[in-house]
Amino acid sequence: MHSLRLGTTKLVAPNIGFLPYQIYHGIKHFHLIAEPVQQALTNGVTIKAWGYNGSTPGPVMVVSQGDRIQVAFTNRLLEETSIHWHGLIVPNTVDGVPGIGAGPVVKPGETYVYDFVIRQAGTFMYHAHTMDAQQEMMGLAGMIVSLPERQTVNREYIILLQEWAVKMGSDMGMSGMGQTSMAPKSDMQSPMEKTTEQKPSGKAFDIDPMSMDYNYFTMNGKSFPDTTPLRVRYGEKVRIRLGNLSMDSHPMHLHGHEFQVAAGDGSTIPIPWFKNTINVAPGETWDIEFQANNPGIWAFHCHKPHHTTNDHMRDMGGMFTTLKYSR
Amino acid sequence: MHSLRLGTTKLVAPNIGFLPYQIYHGIKHFHLIAEPVQQALTNGVTIKAWGYNGSTPGPVMVVSQGDRIQVAFTNRLLEETSIHWHGLIVPNTVDGVPGIGAGPVVKPGETYVYDFVIRQAGTFMYHAHTMDAQQEMMGLAGMIVSLPERQTVNREYIILLQEWAVKMGSDMGMSGMGQTSMAPKSDMQSPMEKTTEQKPSGKAFDIDPMSMDYNYFTMNGKSFPDTTPLRVRYGEKVRIRLGNLSMDSHPMHLHGHEFQVAAGDGSTIPIPWFKNTINVAPGETWDIEFQANNPGIWAFHCHKPHHTTNDHMRDMGGMFTTLKYSR
Amino acid sequence: MHSLRLGTTKLVAPNIGFLPYQIYHGIKHFHLIAEPVQQALTNGVTIKAWGYNGSTPGPVMVVSQGDRIQVAFTNRLLEETSIHWHGLIVPNTVDGVPGIGAGPVVKPGETYVYDFVIRQAGTFMYHAHTMDAQQEMMGLAGMIVSLPERQTVNREYIILLQEWAVKMGSDMGMSGMGQTSMAPKSDMQSPMEKTTEQKPSGKAFDIDPMSMDYNYFTMNGKSFPDTTPLRVRYGEKVRIRLGNLSMDSHPMHLHGHEFQVAAGDGSTIPIPWFKNTINVAPGETWDIEFQANNPGIWAFHCHKPHHTTNDHMRDMGGMFTTLKYSR
Repeated sequence: MHSLRLGTTKLVAPNIGFLPYQIYHGIKHFHLIAEPVQQALTNGVTIKAWGYNGSTPGPVMVVSQGDRIQVAFTNRLLEETSIHWHGLIVPNTVDGVPGIGAGPVVKPGETYVYDFVIRQAGTFMYHAHTMDAQQEMMGLAGMIVSLPERQTVNREYIILLQEWAVKMGSDMGMSGMGQTSMAPKSDMQSPMEKTTEQKPSGKAFDIDPMSMDYNYFTMNGKSFPDTTPLRVRYGEKVRIRLGNLSMDSHPMHLHGHEFQVAAGDGSTIPIPWFKNTINVAPGETWDIEFQANNPGIWAFHCHKPHHTTNDHMRDMGGMFTTLKYSR
Repeated sequence: MHSLRLGTTKLVAPNIGFLPYQIYHGIKHFHLIAEPVQQALTNGVTIKAWGYNGSTPGPVMVVSQGDRIQVAFTNRLLEETSIHWHGLIVPNTVDGVPGIGAGPVVKPGETYVYDFVIRQAGTFMYHAHTMDAQQEMMGLAGMIVSLPERQTVNREYIILLQEWAVKMGSDMGMSGMGQTSMAPKSDMQSPMEKTTEQKPSGKAFDIDPMSMDYNYFTMNGKSFPDTTPLRVRYGEKVRIRLGNLSMDSHPMHLHGHEFQVAAGDGSTIPIPWFKNTINVAPGETWDIEFQANNPGIWAFHCHKPHHTTNDHMRDMGGMFTTLKYSR
Repeated sequence: MHSLRLGTTKLVAPNIGFLPYQIYHGIKHFHLIAEPVQQALTNGVTIKAWGYNGSTPGPVMVVSQGDRIQVAFTNRLLEETSIHWHGLIVPNTVDGVPGIGAGPVVKPGETYVYDFVIRQAGTFMYHAHTMDAQQEMMGLAGMIVSLPERQTVNREYIILLQEWAVKMGSDMGMSGMGQTSMAPKSDMQSPMEKTTEQKPSGKAFDIDPMSMDYNYFTMNGKSFPDTTPLRVRYGEKVRIRLGNLSMDSHPMHLHGHEFQVAAGDGSTIPIPWFKNTINVAPGETWDIEFQANNPGIWAFHCHKPHHTTNDHMRDMGGMFTTLKYSR
């Protein structure tokens, strides 16, 4: 279920979809499971990461202002964890930072039920807040959309930005000659000679959550060319909700359109502010909106040059997708 | 003197306090001394840095619009330096950039008196502007608060963000087995096995101001768990003045509250702009304000995952503190 | 031709100048040539880069809202390329991203004529969008100014920010003892002993577009002390148009003045927003404006400390220039 219809608005969470829920006695019940996942970033590169309910990022949670929600959270990892509701105003007891006493630690095998009321509308995130650096960079992250009272767009996309230090040599059976991120930089071949053809195929690699030598950059867990195009129809008003749970800022650039920066961190920007590149810092969310009035296939990508490559190779890859008009 | 009372407002500069001054003939006289300092970042890690009046950052200077100030500046380093009043509109002759002719160089052992009038209210900084990269990254940095005519908050905190490339092997007596930032990354143990227990205790380490491999991240010279909690009372209006004199941007995220971005670089933001994460770039200051209306213990931290660790270890550390409601 | 007079406004593109054009039948004709260039960054350091019409960045294109332009683009490189008109709303067929079908690929030796109408006023950029990471970081980048209907400033400067991984050992005849960016960091001399005197003189070095170990940082292709001062006269209103086509954000700080952030990505900011440091992310443009009312020689520079050095040495260098009042 990668898309949802709400009145005349279509919500799309490419590649990851939405977290199901059930309503009993007026309470929305969700179930989130932290667990090891194998996430296929792009052709031939699958990583052994941690995620929620089978993927990283986890599925998008959709809620509404005023909802009382209960999130049963099961920890299937081998270490303690917790969930922080990033940007949501919640009581301290469920904030998910056990290290400072703000919410309980959830031990391996245990389930804890987070119970709180949604007080805001906007774009938020959820992520682990125990051993943050390791658990976030292993992939324990997802997005939350709290629906506005009245929808003003026809279509919206929800995209989480992440980055990964994939240990390219960690898969068994690779020859020693492969280009890996462990190779000394001074030893690199000229970019002319280095192509994706050397990429190994179809194995699962370890990632190093404590390394900062990132070599894969993803939008909802996918690197170009395996990102899913964002389809729009001429005349639609489109919103893209962006979140960043990674180490670097990602200045996302849209071709062919000016967009309005409609909200930051879930709060409306009270002036008409137009840009073509929005610098999404770690921990930020930004909502951008535009009229689909210029047909074609348009690039939408991080403007840090290396963030549009895979494994430091020169071909296009990484945090790059397309805005594609349907006929 | 880590806090000051001004009318009904309490100013707090955790861990570093305020620079004393005396008033003669209507002129505020300060005395700043650049000198080698030993700064204890966190348990077991003290660095041999450069600072002002015994610490890095140096003490906060508090001034008011219209003040004429004289800052006697003594250079107790072994090399030339100067002070730049970052963001303050001053005459060119006291701007503190001798390399381009904008103010005098201050030689080792000499004292120079900077003399100028404060024309603005807001949050500013002071730092060396001679051999900038080296001197700033050695720690020659501090904050300036120019008080508003009328206080609108009950309590405010002043925090400078810095980062350090600590040479963990530089202290005598360490065994060769210690995890150090010099170790090849590919050689790192799994995060499961690497804990802070291996951290050496109580020695002073050299820092490398020209390295960009930062392994310690501080708020007013302290890394978590040795940062000082920011105490507030229910019902107070709180301001946090943030400055960044480091190499990286620091997106500071507050839990449990939305804050208003009230000012940037000392200038008021003329719209109601609310966020939960403010990306503080090097050279920027931001003032954020919020109502203390959600009791508990809340995290306030840089959202770059590795900036909340110490020495690349997986435990919580770094640029992380708490907002703590008093009973 | 590094400056242009338009009515009472003087436009200056330091070091690189403006792209000439001719008007036939109401169409502005430009000719851009992608080619290998030797760009002298600063004394003793020339790089073998790629640029347009003899320099990197290429010359500034000046257009006006409503112009129909034809840009004959000749590819004199040994690989395919294309031009993207960053921020301009153009038809999909000329957007210059052939990899996704948005415009043609231009093969070595070929010329293609981009033909479109300028719909916006503001600050934009042009750059390669084929093998982006490699081609942008080799230097295929330039700026576009689309003039406002009515000029409101007396003088404006146009500056593109770039960074380079210069292979300091790549020039023949260098002794093995030179400090190079390939040397292991742990082996570095103390900053006290390392000075620019060791810099080799007058040879052309290779750059590595896929490396992220940047050691040179430029404003319009020049590093301090070889950047050109920005001259102003007392009483003038001055605009600086900044663009960033590099890997890192550059928080540009102006001394002695508060500036108004007048536009971002070519769109006017509809509120009076004043700063002293503007964080220019990759892919962004920002227009800043100020009154020249504080005579002297003032620093204008990136506030990331290492971005104001050359080759990781401690002396002032890099992305640093001066604002210089004429008598």
